[in-house]
Amino acid sequence: MDPDTLSKTFVEHYYNTFDTNRPALIGLYQEGSMLTFEGEKIKGAQAISNKLNGLGFQQCKHHISTVDCQPSGLLDSMIVFVSGNLQLPGEEHMLKFSQMFHLVPANGTYFVFNDIFRLNYA
Amino acid sequence: MDPDTLSKTFVEHYYNTFDTNRPALIGLYQEGSMLTFEGEKIKGAQAISNKLNGLGFQQCKHHISTVDCQPSGLLDSMIVFVSGNLQLPGEEHMLKFSQMFHLVPANGTYFVFNDIFRLNYA
Repeated sequence: MDPDTLSKTFVEHYYNTFDTNRPALIGLYQEGSMLTFEGEKIKGAQAISNKLNGLGFQQCKHHISTVDCQPSGLLDSMIVFVSGNLQLPGEEHMLKFSQMFHLVPANGTYFVFNDIFRLNYA
Repeated sequence: MDPDTLSKTFVEHYYNTFDTNRPALIGLYQEGSMLTFEGEKIKGAQAISNKLNGLGFQQCKHHISTVDCQPSGLLDSMIVFVSGNLQLPGEEHMLKFSQMFHLVPANGTYFVFNDIFRLNYA
């Protein structure tokens, strides 16, 4: 699979899982994984899962606007850069967000080594 | 210098150079560097410099809102994630943007290996 197709497939899988079965996201992270969520730094699959599952909204829908990818220079790793809109329950307006993932291959699949998320309201 | 300080210093240097002496940005890239600018893929310091200097505005001012950084797992490399606003000449409203850099050490300094830029209007 070429990098662009692979990154789009990952992004669709990630946000579909986030929106429909958030606890399953833990399988995409490992012990060394890092998440920076709105400036808060979290490390390790369990802590990241706790953070994502503890967010103050239970239902949401991510709408993807753009997906860019580049090889990161580390083996077959890839940087995936996403922009989009996040719809929260009861909110009329969607929130713009941007997010980057650094995907690192392991055991025939990819896991998320770096994950940085920001809302773009400022 | 700790990673957060280093990344903030880089970001200030990068956008100050962009806004006041854009041709000098070429010194931050190398032959293997990649830029994805609004979805357009460009490779190599010279081609990246040509792209940045050929943008349809000669004057601009970047206002930084947030800077996040994480080690990328590749030696002492760092991922730097920026959100901010871009002011163009004659435009009343600023444009929101987000951008990520993958900084890789070489010869006692850092160069930009990956660079992805997106305006956040969609």
